[in-house]
Amino acid sequence: MLPLQLQPESHVPLYIQIRDQMRALVHSGELRAGDRIPASRELATQLGVHRTTVANAYAELESEGLIQGHVGRGTFILANSKIVMTMPPPPATRNGGVRWESLFADERGEEALSRLLPDVPGKAISFATAKPAEEFFPVEEFKACCNAALHREGGKILQLGASDGYAPLKEVLCALLGAEGIPARDSQLLVTGGCQQSLDLLCKAFLRPGDAVIMENPTYPGAIAIFAGARVHCLGVPVHTDARRHGYAGVDVEALEVALVQNRVKMILLTPDFQNPTGTTLPVAERRRVLDIAAKHQVPVVEDHIYARLRLRGDEIPSLRALDRNGVVIQIDSFSKIAFPGLRVGWCVAPESVIERLRLVKQATDLHTDQLAQAALAEFCRRGHLTRHVAKMKKVYGSRLAIMEGALEENMPDGTTWTRPDGGMCLWVTLPPGFDASELLIHTREEGILFAPGRYFCFQNPVPNTLRLGFASLDERRIARGVAQLGEVLRSEMRKRQRGARQVAGARVAFI
Amino acid sequence: MLPLQLQPESHVPLYIQIRDQMRALVHSGELRAGDRIPASRELATQLGVHRTTVANAYAELESEGLIQGHVGRGTFILANSKIVMTMPPPPATRNGGVRWESLFADERGEEALSRLLPDVPGKAISFATAKPAEEFFPVEEFKACCNAALHREGGKILQLGASDGYAPLKEVLCALLGAEGIPARDSQLLVTGGCQQSLDLLCKAFLRPGDAVIMENPTYPGAIAIFAGARVHCLGVPVHTDARRHGYAGVDVEALEVALVQNRVKMILLTPDFQNPTGTTLPVAERRRVLDIAAKHQVPVVEDHIYARLRLRGDEIPSLRALDRNGVVIQIDSFSKIAFPGLRVGWCVAPESVIERLRLVKQATDLHTDQLAQAALAEFCRRGHLTRHVAKMKKVYGSRLAIMEGALEENMPDGTTWTRPDGGMCLWVTLPPGFDASELLIHTREEGILFAPGRYFCFQNPVPNTLRLGFASLDERRIARGVAQLGEVLRSEMRKRQRGARQVAGARVAFI
Repeated sequence: MLPLQLQPESHVPLYIQIRDQMRALVHSGELRAGDRIPASRELATQLGVHRTTVANAYAELESEGLIQGHVGRGTFILANSKIVMTMPPPPATRNGGVRWESLFADERGEEALSRLLPDVPGKAISFATAKPAEEFFPVEEFKACCNAALHREGGKILQLGASDGYAPLKEVLCALLGAEGIPARDSQLLVTGGCQQSLDLLCKAFLRPGDAVIMENPTYPGAIAIFAGARVHCLGVPVHTDARRHGYAGVDVEALEVALVQNRVKMILLTPDFQNPTGTTLPVAERRRVLDIAAKHQVPVVEDHIYARLRLRGDEIPSLRALDRNGVVIQIDSFSKIAFPGLRVGWCVAPESVIERLRLVKQATDLHTDQLAQAALAEFCRRGHLTRHVAKMKKVYGSRLAIMEGALEENMPDGTTWTRPDGGMCLWVTLPPGFDASELLIHTREEGILFAPGRYFCFQNPVPNTLRLGFASLDERRIARGVAQLGEVLRSEMRKRQRGARQVAGARVAFI
Repeated sequence: MLPLQLQPESHVPLYIQIRDQMRALVHSGELRAGDRIPASRELATQLGVHRTTVANAYAELESEGLIQGHVGRGTFILANSKIVMTMPPPPATRNGGVRWESLFADERGEEALSRLLPDVPGKAISFATAKPAEEFFPVEEFKACCNAALHREGGKILQLGASDGYAPLKEVLCALLGAEGIPARDSQLLVTGGCQQSLDLLCKAFLRPGDAVIMENPTYPGAIAIFAGARVHCLGVPVHTDARRHGYAGVDVEALEVALVQNRVKMILLTPDFQNPTGTTLPVAERRRVLDIAAKHQVPVVEDHIYARLRLRGDEIPSLRALDRNGVVIQIDSFSKIAFPGLRVGWCVAPESVIERLRLVKQATDLHTDQLAQAALAEFCRRGHLTRHVAKMKKVYGSRLAIMEGALEENMPDGTTWTRPDGGMCLWVTLPPGFDASELLIHTREEGILFAPGRYFCFQNPVPNTLRLGFASLDERRIARGVAQLGEVLRSEMRKRQRGARQVAGARVAFI
């Protein structure tokens, strides 16, 4: 019988008491890896609580990796279980120091994001990131903007500022959005530290642990990391990558509706333009359907607009925000892809009441965004540099995309397919069935070629034979060489597999 | 009888089911303001659950402001209760828009912080904030640093960077800390967006909803906001403001130990130097005791070091980190008070394993800190500007503090006391008993004098007759005039009260 003692009068819920005491038993060594623990019904009887209470405690312990159930055998303490100790205090380490690892809250989801921002070895060709081409950064023009801003109001810029953003930048952004046909008033705009922070603020403002959000699967790993850290439940909706097969590319709108009907959903996060990682763009008819469904279910849609200004071919499609008649859309956007990610300035457009809530959350998160970056970017926009820079980069990226597509055509073995993005910074490759992109990466890394395996972008049902190639930050020569080498490694691996398959087939014959 | 239907097989805890269904009853109008709800024992019997389950649900509803208990009368639905709806989806508003307010997660704690960063009316004298004197900002020198950094490596600065910080700044900070006698290696240092963000990252890395932290009460409102938002339980320890009465000024170390013994505590947050808001400094003997207690209980101590370099008189006292022999201290620090808060750059010194965890959390929060600010500040330090600026500002703030103390001596009525800070940016005033600083503020605001009532800094047991005066950002003339006007309003209010008291006394006589 487990030595658990519940305190019904405590303000701590009973299932939490059970969870914590079982953790402590594992930590103290009274329960060890492989030990069988009582069935929930059995323990509930022993403790005189409802079975659900025990089931809730077990669910928590299972999600922490402390216990595992085996069908027909029972539930067992896991080996190497990660224990998050809360009580009693863990014993000191030998040198009297703190066992920090035992004090961390659970970690989930941040790792994939981390793998996308690696230190790239000197001569490697990395398709792993989706970042702008820094060799085209207009540094001199930007420096002049910094100087002008500091000259004009250096004291104000360097002093504590407003949580909703530096007023001159907000003014510039309102003008920019107005010119793009999606007018926003100052009170509908919040400056943030980029889209990653916008997602963090939205998560804090709208979501509690256990709430559910709908996301494209695959999606941006930064979003997965945010929601995992906040213990928010992510519901994945597939992305059609083959328009000929599904009628359109982009998020599967029917699956989205089913997910909305079947779950209590608090938020939908979508990237309709040049989706990261697939590069797909949702057609206008499907955008309208998404908005109708969201309005019917009264669920906010967060539109990630970060790549939208980088359309490299085809016609513009109005954003969800531009099509929105019911006021369900919150749009997040950034200077990171169209100008300088090193500055960490983005923004959020939403109804006034949402912005006011986000402003308070922003304030409690980091007071406000760096004002030197805001002031310099405001000047950069006012002087017309942003418009000129974006126009130039669209040509550069368009040419890089064309080179990449040509190189893929030339070098990829039969059975490999890829998306045809109309913009953005990446495309999505599907290898022949049975291939694992993570394994392929081990071999290409030896040749100095890096990419991002598809599983980094999936929070459920990862497809092992997929990968993302970023084309924006590599020059045309390196793209051509990198794709050629990638194709070579891939074909070499295919030959090995064929030989292996023949040997296995031969071995089978011998045994029969 | 309340029409509640529990689903024991659901993964949703029973007390959450009760809470949500009662919220829905209020929302649908079945329960209205003033309605009496059953006692927890009564409802528990009706539902066949433990009384604690119902008590937990009621505690949640009470903390949301939905219900209130009246001794001897029962528990009632409150008028104007703020309802956070989660299920079923709220009906659409008339224009088809979303009822955003009903979708927000609960908001608690951010308001006080917001009130400290007000738009100050043009001619007002504001003692409300603790921010540096911008008229002394060396803007030209800083501009030269920006130019040098952008000239040297503009492309790298403007490109996506490392989550742990811009390497040249980390190098400068390691040298700075080494020179101060608290050496830190690169792997023990994380650059953040300031102390507010450091607190947010620590909260995410270490704390889950329901965990408890110990803080000084009163304390920095930004810390209250962070923990309230994360649904972390704050345990307050009083701060001795009168060294003659208590033997020392600063956090009450005995009360801290009692709180540690009686509670399961995950973290202690302290500001030993020139504490915000009281201005007190904890003596070295008490610092050692704090460290011993924390090591014994294996609870990390987060030391807010933001004001420590602004010692204006008296001898330096080693920081908790310098005294720490057991590796229990995490130090957070910033350029905001010693240089420019508009840049949002701070840092965190901690054991390597903690920094690695914080780096992942930082990455999932905003990828990294703005690199232009980091690069410019690195250059600002390397050129010796920071050292010179801090030396100069210590003279300026020392003189302002002396003027303020003289003005208080001259203008405050008997029965008013205040702390004698040896540094930092603020002091703490206690008005005669019975006064309410919030009410006083209404009157002083009419005269153009602003300050921060003590209650903004208290997350429990607010003392209404206290207030914080910031002295750093006002010149000596304005300090003298502001304190004189404050004294005048205070004395005028005292006279009114005395007249009122006489009238009440007279009225009583008439009735007897």
